[in-house]
Amino acid sequence: MANLSALMLARDLKLLLEERSKAVAYTSSQTHSSLAKGLGILGFHPSQIRKVTCDDSMRIGTALLRSAIEQDKALGKTPFLIVGKAGTTNTSTVDLFIELAAIAREQNLWLHADGAYGASALLCQSRRAILCGIELCDCLSWDAHKWLFQTYGCGMVLVRHRQFLTESFGTTAEYTQDAAETGESLPNFWSYGPELTRPARAMKLWFSFQLLGLNTIDIAINRGFELAETAQSSLEGLKDWEILSPAQMGIILFPFHPHVPAANLDEVNMRISQSAIENNLAATLTTRVRGVLVLRIYSIHPNLSDDEMLAIINGLDQLAHLYLSRASKDDII
Amino acid sequence: MANLSALMLARDLKLLLEERSKAVAYTSSQTHSSLAKGLGILGFHPSQIRKVTCDDSMRIGTALLRSAIEQDKALGKTPFLIVGKAGTTNTSTVDLFIELAAIAREQNLWLHADGAYGASALLCQSRRAILCGIELCDCLSWDAHKWLFQTYGCGMVLVRHRQFLTESFGTTAEYTQDAAETGESLPNFWSYGPELTRPARAMKLWFSFQLLGLNTIDIAINRGFELAETAQSSLEGLKDWEILSPAQMGIILFPFHPHVPAANLDEVNMRISQSAIENNLAATLTTRVRGVLVLRIYSIHPNLSDDEMLAIINGLDQLAHLYLSRASKDDII
Repeated sequence: MANLSALMLARDLKLLLEERSKAVAYTSSQTHSSLAKGLGILGFHPSQIRKVTCDDSMRIGTALLRSAIEQDKALGKTPFLIVGKAGTTNTSTVDLFIELAAIAREQNLWLHADGAYGASALLCQSRRAILCGIELCDCLSWDAHKWLFQTYGCGMVLVRHRQFLTESFGTTAEYTQDAAETGESLPNFWSYGPELTRPARAMKLWFSFQLLGLNTIDIAINRGFELAETAQSSLEGLKDWEILSPAQMGIILFPFHPHVPAANLDEVNMRISQSAIENNLAATLTTRVRGVLVLRIYSIHPNLSDDEMLAIINGLDQLAHLYLSRASKDDII
Repeated sequence: MANLSALMLARDLKLLLEERSKAVAYTSSQTHSSLAKGLGILGFHPSQIRKVTCDDSMRIGTALLRSAIEQDKALGKTPFLIVGKAGTTNTSTVDLFIELAAIAREQNLWLHADGAYGASALLCQSRRAILCGIELCDCLSWDAHKWLFQTYGCGMVLVRHRQFLTESFGTTAEYTQDAAETGESLPNFWSYGPELTRPARAMKLWFSFQLLGLNTIDIAINRGFELAETAQSSLEGLKDWEILSPAQMGIILFPFHPHVPAANLDEVNMRISQSAIENNLAATLTTRVRGVLVLRIYSIHPNLSDDEMLAIINGLDQLAHLYLSRASKDDII
């Protein structure tokens, strides 16, 4: 919903009605599924989304982005939106917002930052530099139900001017006349988002801030960074593990990579993941990066200790080698 | 969200991409604001919504609807959707679904029933006949946070075939591969609606059904009908009150209508409403029907007693006559 609301602003503020059918949005091949889904809900066809190839760091390739925009303009299309990731779901990569903002400014495009979980690093003083340039965006989505430790259903969207929201979502009806807006101090939230009635989703977040304070939240977010770094240090000392994407904002990708035929590696890693769940060790789920199946840790629980993380890594290592020895004995791999 | 999801199905199942810009949706002038808002989010322009004039019972005029459809077709437009109300917000009017369904079938249009609060009457055996024909619709929106007594954020949409939802909302991504759908028994709800992660909104409703049982829910819904009828009987015995819309599905509209200049009646009724709140009597809010400001009771709290309702009506009557005598003494009216 946060991304949907943000994308709707881009549509309504950057495009005339008659331009919508030839409009084009740009994002990286590492974008979250909610972007394509949101644009689809808003009436755009999948062919109106350019997934620009990432550079080696999994960020939107800005030279490729520039040429894609020029190419579309030459074809009579209307570029209107760039979506940068403040932490991709797969690898927690942060796009180069300073460059994206320069392109958006030159081309008069909307720049949206999808900060679903990564934006929380803004509240961690020692780590926030990783999001350098995010302040140049036109709007930012940010899920408090991820790295601000709330239960589900606490998505946020930050915009520069509140009237951006009311222009897209403003609603009036006879049966709400007694609750008409009485000024800036008491907004009717139905005019700031897609819903008329809503639960008070912001209250739990407000209480967390009041109760914990910014300093405690800073420490809790920093802990997520540290735990992935602890996992990485531990893995680097173990045999047959590869760090495919180093610890960054609490995410690390680390396929088990023993000397077996390459065709078997996906299966091996899938088995390790399943085995870790069956043994109640950890939910070390898998993802794919450049076609390769990898194990992924997303370590944002602030109460997890270093010892617990080390036990998880050692447990995975034991399960991995156990599977390997059994599989080679049974001639499976 | 429920209406938005339902309208998206109509768009995706009834229209080709190139037909969207000339598509037309039909509803009554008594439609809820969420319809226009939902269609706007989905990419339709306000000019693509025909608000068909209501008959004397505030229902969509079906003859007018037929001629509007024919007129649009003659102009090269593409009619695709009729939205009927199973209980309008203002007056709880139920559109003639049997006739709407016949028109939809003839013209190959999607028929959506907006049952936000009214659909709950389906669970009240002695009253459900009021929704006659609703079973002919293609989909039905229904808010459990209204007349099924849940807290906010429990909207539902019922569709005929589950694949209608997955065709519009189906989502896959690398990072959700470990939670891939394993069959009909364990659906991934992210493929059945606009959101990826969601709170478990259905649980509270499920617990209510398990704990209370259908019979208790039937009685509780019936109580809403009865309370508005009690209010009506009481008002009919009092001087200067008009029943503008009789008790129906828990809603009654009843302007205070003394012998004062017609131009003052809106002000008089507004003052009565405000006074009832200030005196902690009841939140008898106002709405407008055919330009006239009226008081409205929406009596769906199952624990309210007849005596309490009678006390509210008598209290309103006292406040009304008190205001009238003061205002005429002060030459305000």
